[in-house]
Amino acid sequence: MGGDLAPAEVVAGACKSAKALGFQLLLVGDEKRIAPLLAAAGAAANVRIVHASEEVSMHEAPSAALRRGGQTSMGRTIELVRDSNADAAFSAGNSGAFLAIATIRLRTLPGIARSAFATAWPAIKGPMLLLDSGANVDCKPEWLVQFALMGVAYSRGVLGVAAPKVGLLSVGEEEGKGNALTASAFPLLRAAPIDFIGNVEGGDLLLGDADVIVCDGFVGNVALKLVEATSEYIFGSVRRASKENLRARAGAALMLPALRRVRAKLDYREYGGAPLLGVRGVCLIGHGRTDSFAVESACRAALTAVRQDVLGAIADATRAAV
Amino acid sequence: MGGDLAPAEVVAGACKSAKALGFQLLLVGDEKRIAPLLAAAGAAANVRIVHASEEVSMHEAPSAALRRGGQTSMGRTIELVRDSNADAAFSAGNSGAFLAIATIRLRTLPGIARSAFATAWPAIKGPMLLLDSGANVDCKPEWLVQFALMGVAYSRGVLGVAAPKVGLLSVGEEEGKGNALTASAFPLLRAAPIDFIGNVEGGDLLLGDADVIVCDGFVGNVALKLVEATSEYIFGSVRRASKENLRARAGAALMLPALRRVRAKLDYREYGGAPLLGVRGVCLIGHGRTDSFAVESACRAALTAVRQDVLGAIADATRAAV
Repeated sequence: MGGDLAPAEVVAGACKSAKALGFQLLLVGDEKRIAPLLAAAGAAANVRIVHASEEVSMHEAPSAALRRGGQTSMGRTIELVRDSNADAAFSAGNSGAFLAIATIRLRTLPGIARSAFATAWPAIKGPMLLLDSGANVDCKPEWLVQFALMGVAYSRGVLGVAAPKVGLLSVGEEEGKGNALTASAFPLLRAAPIDFIGNVEGGDLLLGDADVIVCDGFVGNVALKLVEATSEYIFGSVRRASKENLRARAGAALMLPALRRVRAKLDYREYGGAPLLGVRGVCLIGHGRTDSFAVESACRAALTAVRQDVLGAIADATRAAV
Repeated sequence: MGGDLAPAEVVAGACKSAKALGFQLLLVGDEKRIAPLLAAAGAAANVRIVHASEEVSMHEAPSAALRRGGQTSMGRTIELVRDSNADAAFSAGNSGAFLAIATIRLRTLPGIARSAFATAWPAIKGPMLLLDSGANVDCKPEWLVQFALMGVAYSRGVLGVAAPKVGLLSVGEEEGKGNALTASAFPLLRAAPIDFIGNVEGGDLLLGDADVIVCDGFVGNVALKLVEATSEYIFGSVRRASKENLRARAGAALMLPALRRVRAKLDYREYGGAPLLGVRGVCLIGHGRTDSFAVESACRAALTAVRQDVLGAIADATRAAV
């Protein structure tokens, strides 16, 4: 029920994915609104509605959403995972509420102090994973190490990077450069059982050699929204400019395939949802503007995370690091 | 003598600007290397070389550069300002060294705890000023208020924004959202004698309503490098893609004027240099890859800052805020 385009786009994308990949799909929410969409989505026997009468609104305080428990579609979805009635949860709704509900109801894995949102996009040299992309605005140095361990497990298991390299987002490449947090985190990351390549800078989120970039959730969220806005601005401007005159319109038409390829590298929708890593369950949150394509990608990512046992890999990595 | 393209591009841009705007230009550095460039640059009587035998390298530690005092071209340039033999200083060199030398030799204005780099770009709705863009990686809340006062004075005096609106870079629009720093800075900014519009997000650096955006220098620097990289990546990819086949090449040629307009909005070179605000002197630092066009822009900005008495405006604003 969450997201700007819910429930239509969410139902459409999830049903398409369930048909293609053959998993059991539970659509949690208002039965009266979901049922009419199933026929249009071509739903088969592996799709079932789990009714929840309430929903969490996009601007509701996490604490308020939490109090309503399993009556909301979001709370009920997390409970299905908690009670082993579902293997993974996806929502395109209120990310703060999702974070609070998943963390409280599922709790964190042993050795993990804080769960973190991890956002992936195709980048230039291969899939890039940034975490924390918004769960923890103020972090302790050792949390960044836990983020790195979790990010490596997800990058390997879901994004298919065989030997993920980890970078620390900072403002200069040398070890000493950065703020108090990165200066303290650097030696901890170097000592961790990961392939740590040192500090990376803002531009490396697109162009760099790291496969997993760790930072606090404040910087991560600012960065994420900036990449999105820059990409939107540039392509939006090109689109508008191409309508100004016949010359530009002809040019845009000719360049379209190339422009689409360029844009795809910045498109978070390729991976559909940001996993909330560190909780005892596979949980993904979608962008507020999640469309059916993004939902399909998120379902694929969730299924891969379950099949590759990313939670087990995180637990193993954390145990090895202690 | 600083920057990847020095001294040729720096001399060319500065001489062109001195000719166009009619100010007295002092070129500080190795006379043997600068003199031969003057004829090519068409230098007139208002251009003079101030010899300095040494130069600060791009990766030299600020403390080391500082110890060499006025023997380096950078140290000598700052001393010219300190001794009132120059009204403004510009360097395309080592920004850490520039920060250290300017802060120690010139000291900060009364009421200013820390100087800050401010970076401007054209943005979508008008000139955008981001500070701190890299001088102070860890900040106290009251410093952000000082950054705001300084940014407003510069935006009004140099960027020509009549009534600059100030935003606080954070991860959500509501007052409570953000990290410990932004939560503490928010009420201070609201109480300050500025037009504070509240929290803004990463995307607002391009698309938002604020004219001046304040943040700590860590976040500011990450953001700046990210905008630059995203823009470079997109336009670089479009350029490369346009060479792949005749169809795309024809399209790119037709779209070129439109693409250039889009890119200009993200181009820091339009304003040439980042002022170091808060020190007792007009000081601007250029990007490492500063070309002659950027130097011209920086000279114009420096001249405007002097003529509009931005330092006086900062001092007045700080006094009024106490």
